[in-house]
Amino acid sequence: MKNALQHKVDFKTKPLGSLGKLEDIAVKIGMIQNTLSPELKNPTHIVFAADHGLADEGVSPYPKEVTYQMVMNFLSGGAAINVFCRQNGIDLKVVDAGVDFEFPQGANIVHAKMGRGTKNIMKEPAMTVELCQKTLDKGRDIVNAEFKKGCNIISFGEMGIGNTSSASLLMNKYTGIAIEDCTGKGAGHDDEGLKRKIAILKAASNKHNVSSPLEILATYGGFEIAMMCGAMLQAKANGMIIIVDGFIVTSALLAAYNMDKTILDNCIFCHCSGEKGHKAMLDYLGGVALVDLGMRLGEGTGAAVTYPLIKSAVLFLNEMASFESAGVSNKE
Amino acid sequence: MKNALQHKVDFKTKPLGSLGKLEDIAVKIGMIQNTLSPELKNPTHIVFAADHGLADEGVSPYPKEVTYQMVMNFLSGGAAINVFCRQNGIDLKVVDAGVDFEFPQGANIVHAKMGRGTKNIMKEPAMTVELCQKTLDKGRDIVNAEFKKGCNIISFGEMGIGNTSSASLLMNKYTGIAIEDCTGKGAGHDDEGLKRKIAILKAASNKHNVSSPLEILATYGGFEIAMMCGAMLQAKANGMIIIVDGFIVTSALLAAYNMDKTILDNCIFCHCSGEKGHKAMLDYLGGVALVDLGMRLGEGTGAAVTYPLIKSAVLFLNEMASFESAGVSNKE
Repeated sequence: MKNALQHKVDFKTKPLGSLGKLEDIAVKIGMIQNTLSPELKNPTHIVFAADHGLADEGVSPYPKEVTYQMVMNFLSGGAAINVFCRQNGIDLKVVDAGVDFEFPQGANIVHAKMGRGTKNIMKEPAMTVELCQKTLDKGRDIVNAEFKKGCNIISFGEMGIGNTSSASLLMNKYTGIAIEDCTGKGAGHDDEGLKRKIAILKAASNKHNVSSPLEILATYGGFEIAMMCGAMLQAKANGMIIIVDGFIVTSALLAAYNMDKTILDNCIFCHCSGEKGHKAMLDYLGGVALVDLGMRLGEGTGAAVTYPLIKSAVLFLNEMASFESAGVSNKE
Repeated sequence: MKNALQHKVDFKTKPLGSLGKLEDIAVKIGMIQNTLSPELKNPTHIVFAADHGLADEGVSPYPKEVTYQMVMNFLSGGAAINVFCRQNGIDLKVVDAGVDFEFPQGANIVHAKMGRGTKNIMKEPAMTVELCQKTLDKGRDIVNAEFKKGCNIISFGEMGIGNTSSASLLMNKYTGIAIEDCTGKGAGHDDEGLKRKIAILKAASNKHNVSSPLEILATYGGFEIAMMCGAMLQAKANGMIIIVDGFIVTSALLAAYNMDKTILDNCIFCHCSGEKGHKAMLDYLGGVALVDLGMRLGEGTGAAVTYPLIKSAVLFLNEMASFESAGVSNKE
């Protein structure tokens, strides 16, 4: 199939290779769907939100309340992710994976609360292995619901004050890269705040001795990250295209990858985040991001803004004429 | 206005600066339109096509007939630029600026033929200064027609076998950069072909002694490049946003910039081409491209595929909630 796809790409009316990264994406999507004429159906973006016990240690310059306040912002349509999903015809789902706030019944949110925030990693594991497994399963269910509605391309985002810290710790444990190189300014630390954050994360990293992928995720993850990991594993099992955005989403993929190495076959890396550590994560996974817009907002905004580029890749494969069909002379 | 725009950007519900390059574009577009709530209206893409006398010297591995064959492909909707303009709601106009072929009357093409291809630069100037001035004026008229229909954001593309050679020569003359560093593989030379191309362009560069911006354009340009240059100058005069794509389009901008330095205030550089020399052109103009997808197809395809990112910038500025309006706490 790969050769047949490459042949189709090469005989479009254009110089060989001249659509660059779009050509790679077209071939990859054709392989995921095992067809020369792939289609993108019901693109869906799921934002998982949760609170982090570790936020009590002051790892973020924003107060913890911002998690639920931003979820309310998602529900009323005013956040960046709402704007970009509306623009690009992407269905947006918001999931309460474990926010420390009771959302009103009837709110347009998927209720999947695994707890009112995780435990403080400085004192105990974020969650038990059993609870982590349940959280993974819940993520699988949520993706299956979208798959059954016809979705075949999915992306993820997150909201959770303190979650770049959780992502840095997961990166450190899964890749072995030193905490300093896994830790960035998150949503807005100054140099002093970054130093403090690194000191806390070093202590947290040394606190627990864990080795299996699931134990690492339970100990250092968050509810939103673990649920996203389960969602990714199920998306792979369903043969869906997974658009992978920034730092925290990729930390969930690191966990998923350590549970199922083949998941990378279905992943398209859309944006290299401005958050320190993301590039090293991509290198570890052998992934090359489609673009680098210097974004580091979270919510999966990188996936939502780059979706049209992925669509461009599929459309040129399906709609462009070939040299033969257009009666255009090829190279002499 | 710049400060007011930056303030609006900074109080959106997101970490400061976290939308990266999209923030710069939002501010730039607000300044072009002198408003806190800019709008993109009737986005239009104009492809100028023309033949080059220099093609007789074998500077391209494609036969000259490909110019008109590809124009026919544009008219029947099968080229890359058709696919991407359809996808992103961009109005596409195709202009015969000087193709060596008579297109049927009634074809959906703007008839603006300045000649059946330019002269062979190895023997004489591509066109006279008078003809170049007429070509610029024609470009101005074509943009004005779109402006009167309500278009306020415009991008350009080109088709013309041999036109990377013309663009390299213009780059060499306007920037003083050596021919070797201005010359790439174009639509598909191998290393041997590239060497031959460089030798021809060196000879062409030494052939004529010209200095004024208009003389340089007349001597080394093409009809499509000169017409694009006039179109850009008029777009600037009309206060329109100009999306600047790859190597050949930027060579037209080099000419326009040497006639009106303020044109850069209205330019957004959307894509850094895979064609050698484009990055150096951008550096000369102080421009930073939004993305680098490794594309080098021409037709202005980089502009058409990245248009949604520019739209994202305008939409977040207009539609995102502020910390205050959404009741979200800002940094402590």
